[in-house]
Amino acid sequence: MAPRWKGKAAEAKALAEPMSVVVSQLQSSLLESDSQGLLSGCAVLLEALPHQTELLNRACFGRPVITADKDKQWHQLSFEEALYLCFVLKCIKVVGENKCAKNDQELWRYMTAKRVGFPILFKAYSHLRRKNWVVRAGVQYGVDFVAYRYHPALVHSEYAVLALSDEDADANTRLKAWSDFHCTLRLCGSVAKTLLVLHISKNGNDAVSLSSLEHYSVEERIVTRWNPEVSRENQTMIVKK
Amino acid sequence: MAPRWKGKAAEAKALAEPMSVVVSQLQSSLLESDSQGLLSGCAVLLEALPHQTELLNRACFGRPVITADKDKQWHQLSFEEALYLCFVLKCIKVVGENKCAKNDQELWRYMTAKRVGFPILFKAYSHLRRKNWVVRAGVQYGVDFVAYRYHPALVHSEYAVLALSDEDADANTRLKAWSDFHCTLRLCGSVAKTLLVLHISKNGNDAVSLSSLEHYSVEERIVTRWNPEVSRENQTMIVKK
Repeated sequence: MAPRWKGKAAEAKALAEPMSVVVSQLQSSLLESDSQGLLSGCAVLLEALPHQTELLNRACFGRPVITADKDKQWHQLSFEEALYLCFVLKCIKVVGENKCAKNDQELWRYMTAKRVGFPILFKAYSHLRRKNWVVRAGVQYGVDFVAYRYHPALVHSEYAVLALSDEDADANTRLKAWSDFHCTLRLCGSVAKTLLVLHISKNGNDAVSLSSLEHYSVEERIVTRWNPEVSRENQTMIVKK
Repeated sequence: MAPRWKGKAAEAKALAEPMSVVVSQLQSSLLESDSQGLLSGCAVLLEALPHQTELLNRACFGRPVITADKDKQWHQLSFEEALYLCFVLKCIKVVGENKCAKNDQELWRYMTAKRVGFPILFKAYSHLRRKNWVVRAGVQYGVDFVAYRYHPALVHSEYAVLALSDEDADANTRLKAWSDFHCTLRLCGSVAKTLLVLHISKNGNDAVSLSSLEHYSVEERIVTRWNPEVSRENQTMIVKK
């Protein structure tokens, strides 16, 4: 499926500005300013300079928080986004309520305790982000994430993503019933997305530590309906002519 | 939500012909002709006389099977439909491959062995049918059933129905994850149906027998999204003016 562009200039704009480049720029900028995120419930608040705000928006991390203060811009990061910036890109620190920076392990323990199924969700998020997909929450489509090939202002999301694990009881309740499968596929079809199921396996890593995440394997499966009319051999040949 | 009629004459037609009356007529007619259904895999085939064909269609049981024989019309009934006609309305007999009529218990054992979660599905089906709802398979909407207030030719279905049981492991995989909830609600919204969740409890009946079904309790829950704009008190008052 080709990207569904938003407007005529979108394609040129997207190709001129690869996501990998934008993320690198963001990484350097946040590193340079020694940026700190602030744990706040189930989110992380990040204060950004004006040019960082622009980079965060272009790289699609977090959502701007509207405040009265015009000089400082705050961004609300999800746990996945904050941990990705902290642990994978190593460009922010996260501090708790006591203003002390948490190390990766402390942050991991906090987040896994707060969010059910977080290890599998974070593995899925970082798996796609590392491949330069833009990953956003999929709650409005009844999935874990949606994945965009370029910036969401330029394209519609292509994939509705579910992260499943046979080993993690918290992350294995979806797609067990046929009716759930039908529901998900019908909804994906109606919003022109492809269902991408990431089957994540812990490969015997019982202790769910941040370092063991590297050894998790991710199997990508695309699920689509099989249409006999389209899939018939001679029909395909006619279409190809 | 008011019924969504199909066409202008639909309402008058539906009110002139209550479903309870049509089902009674069907019941008498099938009883009179000593009708027999034939078990065939996961369906029951029922041979019908021309006026019975009309009654089956009006009462919305089964689907006509197209054959070369013009005098005999066959109808394919789902397990729920066949067992409802056999056990609740007591107007057909069902025979197996050996042409011997199965008693209710034999039929029940056959069906529960063939279909995962059948006891809960049948309880849900018969619960709604007894209240004169027309119940059809909900597979295309990712639910167990859809329920129509009148004949499907006259109205769109109002409810998308899921039958859940906390006790039956086969029937409790849906709506465990928030993403599944969101998915189901969004799909129901997009096809203008209300999600009706039937929570079925066995009330301590361990043995899943046909006779114990009577003692199952059914709790009906309607699930809708809460819209703060619509639900606000003064907003409601403005709307009411």
